[in-house]
Amino acid sequence: MKICVLPGDGIGPEITAEAVRVLNALDLKFEMEEALLGGCAVDATGNPYPEATQKLAQAADAVLLGAVGGPKWDSYPREQRPERGLLGIRKQLGLFANLRPAILYPELANASTLKPEVVAGLDILIVRELTGDIYFGQPRGIEMRDVDGKHQRFGFNTMHYTESEIRRILRVAFDAAKKRNKRVCSVDKMNVLECTQLWRDVAIEVGAEYPDVELSHMLVDNAAMQLVKNPKQFDVMVTGNMFGDILSDEASMLTGSIGMLPSASLDENNKGLYEPSHGSAPDIAGKGVANPLATILSAAMMLRYTFNQEAVAQRIEGAVKKVLAQGFRTGDIYESGMKRVGTREMGDAVLAVL
Amino acid sequence: MKICVLPGDGIGPEITAEAVRVLNALDLKFEMEEALLGGCAVDATGNPYPEATQKLAQAADAVLLGAVGGPKWDSYPREQRPERGLLGIRKQLGLFANLRPAILYPELANASTLKPEVVAGLDILIVRELTGDIYFGQPRGIEMRDVDGKHQRFGFNTMHYTESEIRRILRVAFDAAKKRNKRVCSVDKMNVLECTQLWRDVAIEVGAEYPDVELSHMLVDNAAMQLVKNPKQFDVMVTGNMFGDILSDEASMLTGSIGMLPSASLDENNKGLYEPSHGSAPDIAGKGVANPLATILSAAMMLRYTFNQEAVAQRIEGAVKKVLAQGFRTGDIYESGMKRVGTREMGDAVLAVL
Ligand SMILES: CC(C)[C@H](C(=O)O)[C@@H](O)C(=O)O
Ligand SMILES: CC(C)[C@H](C(=O)O)[C@@H](O)C(=O)O
Repeated sequence: MKICVLPGDGIGPEITAEAVRVLNALDLKFEMEEALLGGCAVDATGNPYPEATQKLAQAADAVLLGAVGGPKWDSYPREQRPERGLLGIRKQLGLFANLRPAILYPELANASTLKPEVVAGLDILIVRELTGDIYFGQPRGIEMRDVDGKHQRFGFNTMHYTESEIRRILRVAFDAAKKRNKRVCSVDKMNVLECTQLWRDVAIEVGAEYPDVELSHMLVDNAAMQLVKNPKQFDVMVTGNMFGDILSDEASMLTGSIGMLPSASLDENNKGLYEPSHGSAPDIAGKGVANPLATILSAAMMLRYTFNQEAVAQRIEGAVKKVLAQGFRTGDIYESGMKRVGTREMGDAVLAVL
Repeated sequence: MKICVLPGDGIGPEITAEAVRVLNALDLKFEMEEALLGGCAVDATGNPYPEATQKLAQAADAVLLGAVGGPKWDSYPREQRPERGLLGIRKQLGLFANLRPAILYPELANASTLKPEVVAGLDILIVRELTGDIYFGQPRGIEMRDVDGKHQRFGFNTMHYTESEIRRILRVAFDAAKKRNKRVCSVDKMNVLECTQLWRDVAIEVGAEYPDVELSHMLVDNAAMQLVKNPKQFDVMVTGNMFGDILSDEASMLTGSIGMLPSASLDENNKGLYEPSHGSAPDIAGKGVANPLATILSAAMMLRYTFNQEAVAQRIEGAVKKVLAQGFRTGDIYESGMKRVGTREMGDAVLAVL
């Protein structure tokens, strides 16, 4: 069980350290090696996804990532920005299936900006396609063109999907729904975009292979509304890379506790990259106050999806619930009356329960 | 002052009728003519935006639209779907600037799914570019291609913007911000899409022309989160057609009373199309229960932007506030203790105040 650990930037090193401690505390033998991704990799090598990291990531069974990015690199040339590293590893490893749960922990219900009755018990799984769409489509660029009688700058990108790309991500969504509440909502913009008309056509075809799962369709603008209006109507939502980027972030913010939300990005053989849904939070980096629970829960997803250790995954998830019940809170989820702790103490609390 | 009235489908005819009554009650002389757009136009002529409607709309100073669409036409071929009519009229009339206020009326604060303190006093203006982007970009389609060693269906669309398209919508946003709280947030996905990198570059250039307005930038995924987390941080948000479609719907649902929200779509000379932000609500069509206030408020926007009648616009907006204060409520915004009324009675109430 080889794990490539990529601490990354900002709070990344602090939070992955806690997840690594949790993994090491289990009765399982992992081989772990660290490498650079993102801004720290640019600083060290000029490349956000350096050769050495590529080799390690390709040889590993799973990748544990902290987070990448920060204002320091915002003005760097495109090819040297931290997020290029993230896009690069996703594409190179073929991590097409991004699973992003949006779960509200009862203890943290107050953290949501939505009314308790709207979000109590929220448990949505967003399945986002991650290696296609306008993210990777060619042609793309900025060039000078003669348009509307003017010689001017022209920016362009290409959205595209093949039917096999759509089919494989839909199957991931349906397979996940079978183990949940057996409902898939496929999100598109078929009334405007032909590319997503194909998405809908293929979704219907795949749906026919899963008679026990209910398939519905929703336009992306309506989906953005319905997540606010009545998020509990959803079980599994599946959509393309671009819409998934927007909707998964919206959905995770409904909980008000994005510091609790893990994610998995899987290839065809359940090799995966696991990372918290939140970012690198440069403002609190190095202070030892970041919430490590999303990263610890990402490690649990790794045990579930890549290493097929469902029982161990549940043990970790149970431990996280327990520490919340015990009142431990990092700053992002703190409420008065609770025990305010830092990153390391939160890791200690999880280890104590385990 | 020539107005082309397009009642459209679903509840469209009922709600536009009330806005027309309000317009006729003012001390202004309008010439109004009705025509067909959307599903009703397809039924009558086979074309969602028929020639006769095109002539009338082009000759008019402003267009008042109810809503288009309904399940009946969902399975029609692409070119005969109601929304094609809407896209057609936007493009033909050059209505590039879509203004969508998201305002929470204090009387309706309970309708929101968000906590009162998060949305009380909410007043955002979303400025969405409406005639460019992936909505209209060529090439586009679904065809058979050899990809990944398979002969298969391939769906594709093209996102593009020229610098002049971006510049003119940014100016609309900055001009609007000057009359408001002097803050513009420009939304893009510059870390992934070159097209929106150009958007950001041009936004910065235009920003330099408005030293008294504060310009900030936000990635679209973060914007979708921030609208949920702290919507009151925004004054004017400006973005492209696709992102604007998603974010403006999300923002309007934050209020919980989308039946109150108007919209304007303007060309370079303030000719405009005015329509409620909600849809055609086929489920309640013909029952006389739909909320006409968003359409009446759209008529107020028409007086403001196309006819330069700020005082009259404010009179109508004041009347709408008054009827809410008087306790009149259609079903969509009803709370116990209030006076439940139908479409026509709500129109009567507004007329009584005027
Ligand atoms: C950093 C960025 C390229 C990335 C994306 O857009 O996919 C991020 O927003 C995410 O969702 O993981
Ligand atoms: C009906 C549809 C084509 C339209 C759009 O996507 O622009 C609608 O959602 C809107 O926002 O007016």
